[in-house]
Amino acid sequence: MQPRPGTTETLARFVVDTRWDDIPAEARHEAKRALLNFFAVALAGCRTEPVAMALKSLAEFSGGRQATVIGRRDRIDALSAAFLNAAGANVFDYCDTHLPTVVHPTSPLAPAVLAMAELQRVTGPEFLTAFVLGFEIECRIGAAISPGHYPKGWHITSTCGVFAAAAAAGKLLGLAAQPMVWALGTAATQSAGLCECLGWPAKSVSVGNAARNGLWSALLAEKGFAGPPEPLAGAQGFFAVMDEPVNWSGLLDGLGQDWQVANNSIKPYPSGFVIHPLLDLALDWRRANPKAVVEKVRARGNPLLLQRTDRPEVRTGREAQVSLQHAVAAALVLGRAGLAEFTDACVNDSAVSALRRKVEVAAKDGLSTIAAEMDFVTSDGKTHSVSTQAARGSAANPLKDAEIEEKLRIEADSWQKGHDIQPLIDAVWAVDRSEDVSSLARLAVPG
Amino acid sequence: MQPRPGTTETLARFVVDTRWDDIPAEARHEAKRALLNFFAVALAGCRTEPVAMALKSLAEFSGGRQATVIGRRDRIDALSAAFLNAAGANVFDYCDTHLPTVVHPTSPLAPAVLAMAELQRVTGPEFLTAFVLGFEIECRIGAAISPGHYPKGWHITSTCGVFAAAAAAGKLLGLAAQPMVWALGTAATQSAGLCECLGWPAKSVSVGNAARNGLWSALLAEKGFAGPPEPLAGAQGFFAVMDEPVNWSGLLDGLGQDWQVANNSIKPYPSGFVIHPLLDLALDWRRANPKAVVEKVRARGNPLLLQRTDRPEVRTGREAQVSLQHAVAAALVLGRAGLAEFTDACVNDSAVSALRRKVEVAAKDGLSTIAAEMDFVTSDGKTHSVSTQAARGSAANPLKDAEIEEKLRIEADSWQKGHDIQPLIDAVWAVDRSEDVSSLARLAVPG
Repeated sequence: MQPRPGTTETLARFVVDTRWDDIPAEARHEAKRALLNFFAVALAGCRTEPVAMALKSLAEFSGGRQATVIGRRDRIDALSAAFLNAAGANVFDYCDTHLPTVVHPTSPLAPAVLAMAELQRVTGPEFLTAFVLGFEIECRIGAAISPGHYPKGWHITSTCGVFAAAAAAGKLLGLAAQPMVWALGTAATQSAGLCECLGWPAKSVSVGNAARNGLWSALLAEKGFAGPPEPLAGAQGFFAVMDEPVNWSGLLDGLGQDWQVANNSIKPYPSGFVIHPLLDLALDWRRANPKAVVEKVRARGNPLLLQRTDRPEVRTGREAQVSLQHAVAAALVLGRAGLAEFTDACVNDSAVSALRRKVEVAAKDGLSTIAAEMDFVTSDGKTHSVSTQAARGSAANPLKDAEIEEKLRIEADSWQKGHDIQPLIDAVWAVDRSEDVSSLARLAVPG
Repeated sequence: MQPRPGTTETLARFVVDTRWDDIPAEARHEAKRALLNFFAVALAGCRTEPVAMALKSLAEFSGGRQATVIGRRDRIDALSAAFLNAAGANVFDYCDTHLPTVVHPTSPLAPAVLAMAELQRVTGPEFLTAFVLGFEIECRIGAAISPGHYPKGWHITSTCGVFAAAAAAGKLLGLAAQPMVWALGTAATQSAGLCECLGWPAKSVSVGNAARNGLWSALLAEKGFAGPPEPLAGAQGFFAVMDEPVNWSGLLDGLGQDWQVANNSIKPYPSGFVIHPLLDLALDWRRANPKAVVEKVRARGNPLLLQRTDRPEVRTGREAQVSLQHAVAAALVLGRAGLAEFTDACVNDSAVSALRRKVEVAAKDGLSTIAAEMDFVTSDGKTHSVSTQAARGSAANPLKDAEIEEKLRIEADSWQKGHDIQPLIDAVWAVDRSEDVSSLARLAVPG
């Protein structure tokens, strides 16, 4: 790869120089939507085994109770809190998705800014500015190495999330351009994460690390911990090792004009995003045909659908989230596709198991990742064909604000019956008028 | 990449099943030599800015004083101790080198086993067995992705070191084969580190993480934290993302028969290993020609010499360690090549600076990384040509035991005048008879 000196500095200066007033109203609003969704998925994830085990282990080495673990009364050091909240938010793959890159931007990002807000006083505008900038850096670096990076097996949310956390935390620390380059370099040398771990607790480690290590990179840079001048585009830097043709325009074009947070989409279902158009079709068809007995399902989608989610046999709820066969079968059998449909219990449901084996899938050129076609062959011998061009929750068909609020209410209530989450919802919508956002994460802890 | 199911399990079973009696005397002895050298380089590194800054930062989040920070009175949690001791041991690139891969095996490995020995009771034979096995796994995984991995820009000591720490800590925890596979998977998804950071404090982060994250992977696995069955050779596993032709025979041939620790070499100089044959030649020639005025130096070496260390302009001692021009100039001007010759002060020495500009380098096919040729053109117009086939400290020309002891004595004394390091030297040579090695790291702390 031909080095491009000054690339990292360009990004660093953008983060350092951008002010609250530079961020348009739409981006601010999308940031709040992303935060509401983040709290929903973090409340869903905080009760899971990976988070519980990691918390138990980290507590043996942690000092201080600086920061909130979302959804739990445990407090822990800020680095560990960033780890746990990121791991929890992503554990169900129910988090937001930046469609051009398939990065889940907020899971590794929000925990770093929330932890910073418990380490020092942060106002609402500072908080949102840092969030939007972290989002921007993360998704632009993701775009630079897409489309090759993720299909090769890199967990792009983890490998790019570390930059989000570093940039956002660095912004809140008020880093100048030089230490901001250092923070991005220390983040780059910690970028890691394998898609092979999808469906296993091990996945949570790289996502948690992205938040923890990005935050730490910024804290180290503030102490003067130096790095190379061109960690991204140097001869042996991040782009060189990732060994993809670098999409320079995706990295840099429209910086400060186009906002990646405006390309964010929020999931209605806790499964891999490429499965969503199938779930829309299966749920809608089932609602219209409640009594029909399905003998065969034929699904067609983007090639990524096959690459990522072709799993006719599943054993656990976690695996089920990345199994299109399970998702479609559960939706048809139960008429829902919420978290309860991606549990071990649902995997072992005999009707769901039986129908899973009847779901076939094929790639079809020309279908985007948010489009799908399905044929339902019913016991009367008929074939019902349906299709969608824009899955619910995609940029072309986004969830409404009220739908996101409802998702948060459901997850809060599901974790602890009666946990009144309205104060958190109100606080997020009003965060740009807050003088101190340190209480935000605490509102996500049942009283 | 075609997946090869069972690969990780083969390595895991090897680690789980190998006993102290299976390890030949030569490998045991080499392990002790590696440990003595480790303490020397850790004592050299513990006083550096990267370690001091990282310690200050980690202490803000750390709980407990479980483990020793080598060379310092500070105690800290075991994960942070592993980080700091690994970072410190590698900071000067003065650590040992596994020649077939250019991995520095002991820096990320020893800190994990030392931290384990402070978390639980570990006997000498258990300690050495875990060390030798961690070494084996680390270097075999390195071999599997060599020779492409390192030249691409991956810091192979970091990317492979995390497996060493996981395997060794897992062995001490008595993990069975299944959790050992999990530990290696959680290590794989944390594998990271960029050569772009060489010469900067940021380098220390990936090396420290290798020890810390590998150790944590094993501790998580012991708690039941599961991962995929084939993290190394799965379709989206470690080998797939690293995207090199996998050298399967380097990974697996002779497992349990050939011991990688027998391929270890210990450095006489604190610079990049490929510079060493040049330093042998420059120092020997200077001793033989103490008065000669050098007008021009022409060096020829393996292509890696140019790729890694062609840095005619340097600004810091750290950069100087990977500058062949600086190393040769300092050796010729000062007649030495110890740590003092790789400091900021030496970089700014006017005689050294002037001579640096007179050093030329060229790649020569057929020269190995431990061979070099040099021409010294002197002010009387003569050209003196010298060459070596086997640098001091290489496998073909290893340091003597007493030379390693002396290296440790020098670094211990240099850190704290009068620190009696003999008890540590005696303890390492006698470690296979120890009932409890928890005191080993503490002997490396000045009283």
